[in-house]
Amino acid sequence: VSTIGPMSGGIDIHTHVVPREFPAYGGSSILPAWPSMEVLPCGHANLVISGKLFRTVSEAAWSVPRRIGDLAEMGLGRQVISPMPELLSYWLPLSDALALLRHVNATIAGMVAEDPIRLIGMGAVPLQDIPVAIAELRYLVEAYDLRAVEIGSNVNGVSIGAPCFEPFFEAAADLEVAVFVHALRAAGTDRLVGPPVLEQIIAFPGEIALAIASLITGGILVRHPKLRIAFSHGGGGFALTLARMEHFWSDLPRFRDLLTESPSATARRAYYDLAVFDSTVVRMLVARFGVGQLLIGSDYPFGAYERAPLEVLRGAGLTEVELSAVAKTNAQRYLGIWDGSGETP
Amino acid sequence: VSTIGPMSGGIDIHTHVVPREFPAYGGSSILPAWPSMEVLPCGHANLVISGKLFRTVSEAAWSVPRRIGDLAEMGLGRQVISPMPELLSYWLPLSDALALLRHVNATIAGMVAEDPIRLIGMGAVPLQDIPVAIAELRYLVEAYDLRAVEIGSNVNGVSIGAPCFEPFFEAAADLEVAVFVHALRAAGTDRLVGPPVLEQIIAFPGEIALAIASLITGGILVRHPKLRIAFSHGGGGFALTLARMEHFWSDLPRFRDLLTESPSATARRAYYDLAVFDSTVVRMLVARFGVGQLLIGSDYPFGAYERAPLEVLRGAGLTEVELSAVAKTNAQRYLGIWDGSGETP
Repeated sequence: VSTIGPMSGGIDIHTHVVPREFPAYGGSSILPAWPSMEVLPCGHANLVISGKLFRTVSEAAWSVPRRIGDLAEMGLGRQVISPMPELLSYWLPLSDALALLRHVNATIAGMVAEDPIRLIGMGAVPLQDIPVAIAELRYLVEAYDLRAVEIGSNVNGVSIGAPCFEPFFEAAADLEVAVFVHALRAAGTDRLVGPPVLEQIIAFPGEIALAIASLITGGILVRHPKLRIAFSHGGGGFALTLARMEHFWSDLPRFRDLLTESPSATARRAYYDLAVFDSTVVRMLVARFGVGQLLIGSDYPFGAYERAPLEVLRGAGLTEVELSAVAKTNAQRYLGIWDGSGETP
Repeated sequence: VSTIGPMSGGIDIHTHVVPREFPAYGGSSILPAWPSMEVLPCGHANLVISGKLFRTVSEAAWSVPRRIGDLAEMGLGRQVISPMPELLSYWLPLSDALALLRHVNATIAGMVAEDPIRLIGMGAVPLQDIPVAIAELRYLVEAYDLRAVEIGSNVNGVSIGAPCFEPFFEAAADLEVAVFVHALRAAGTDRLVGPPVLEQIIAFPGEIALAIASLITGGILVRHPKLRIAFSHGGGGFALTLARMEHFWSDLPRFRDLLTESPSATARRAYYDLAVFDSTVVRMLVARFGVGQLLIGSDYPFGAYERAPLEVLRGAGLTEVELSAVAKTNAQRYLGIWDGSGETP
């Protein structure tokens, strides 16, 4: 895959970071769910949380040179780096979460400082306390100039479309911070038959769909038109749920009366990454959301990440102009970083 | 819409019945969740359960002449009639569930006796007790010649792909009873932001997707190749989840090792109804499952049911031959009722 040509500026908006190390726990919990890294040979490490192996990761999780090399292999030029979702820490006591997220955010800001041309930082804030989360959002901007934040699809089981989270979205819109919603601790995990890895594979698509729907039925996307928000994994099953929502909106007054515009119109206010691995799915997302709302997302560097994101889009029949929009100008528009070159985003 | 021509034999496999009346409660529970009907003017009735209005239904829920008239309006010739899912009664004490389901099954068999040419009966069994459920399956066949059964996507929160349900599926395959899986009491309902009607609109697609995935990862579909099984609402979000499963199956050994064939191959062992209301979705289901696995389903007579199922398929670009397969021969094959006419199913 060549890195020469218009795609050299392509942006992967969905990649994750695990810091190489974590500070010793300094809080007062007796059994803190505090992460630590066990160094392994060959540039790998075990992330251990609460005494259990959570995930074995390679140096790609923290090494800037390694990421830059892999990015070129993927045919892209820039990468948004966000925390591994399990680090979002909504389930920790607030003081523990705050300490951990400050370490993670500082790590991400430090990686960006190593290569500010190619890396774009995305931080995290403790959404279990909205005033603190808003203060931390401001801190991300002021301390590090980080203008993107990753959030979970739910906060301790409460969908992000619930009214209590609206002040956070209002603050993100005001501060011009882009929001990336990632599936997390999925609804229906207890319905899976098989090992824990099925949560990511099978339950994430339903989970992120529920999160998007909650922002629509809760009215948040309509009330905050300046909010720039993107959803992981192509919105999961949401493109199919949306067809059902659209039909009921047309046909069932008690659902229509709930919304001020059609669910499809609201859905097109948001962005969706293309971490979907399948050209047929890409075609459906183009039909459902419009090519202007789609972004490259690979889920790098975790297992089964998308190694050839541009090939999937070409396989879906996108023209080079559309490909350039998805890979570059859509992402610039979503992130608020249009550099004045290329077509107007 | 004309009822003349090849489509006059078209079969709608997804329609529901609510009996016009229920017997008085005869069990020993102090607060039984036993249904009753309050008659309303103009051929309507309120279905009341546990003292609360569950749903207002029209006579279409029980009247054979009314159904036959509406069926012709939809351009179809036959209709599979199954219980309203909330009547499945998995959450009742076994003796109450058994009494209620026997009443529902007898009602459905009675409706079929009124018009055995146009109506095809689908019963229900108490899956909270597998040996009793299997005995009731046999009773459906012997007492009423009912060779189709509706089941929920979960039984009191346990996915139907869990090992405990395998003897039921084995019995259905042995008795040559077609199984129709309907979304029920959906996972993620607590993630919805808005009124109760959102469960059906937004949470059902994720719920039925989880049920299908559980039958794949639990191995039931592969181990029972003679099982004829169909899923409601086009499988909900499953067509999108499947693309993700397929990618991880190719790329992640610990997921691949779990399955004896690709998730897509297993998915094509099942049938999916087309109660999806959208031509783009139909096209995706054709691409994902093959036209031979799709069936007409309308969700008649409940709110927002599909009034023009053939139009949606024509809008998706299906040829008349494909349309005839979906509407007729696929359904005959699924139900085990090929009459020897038309193309070989």
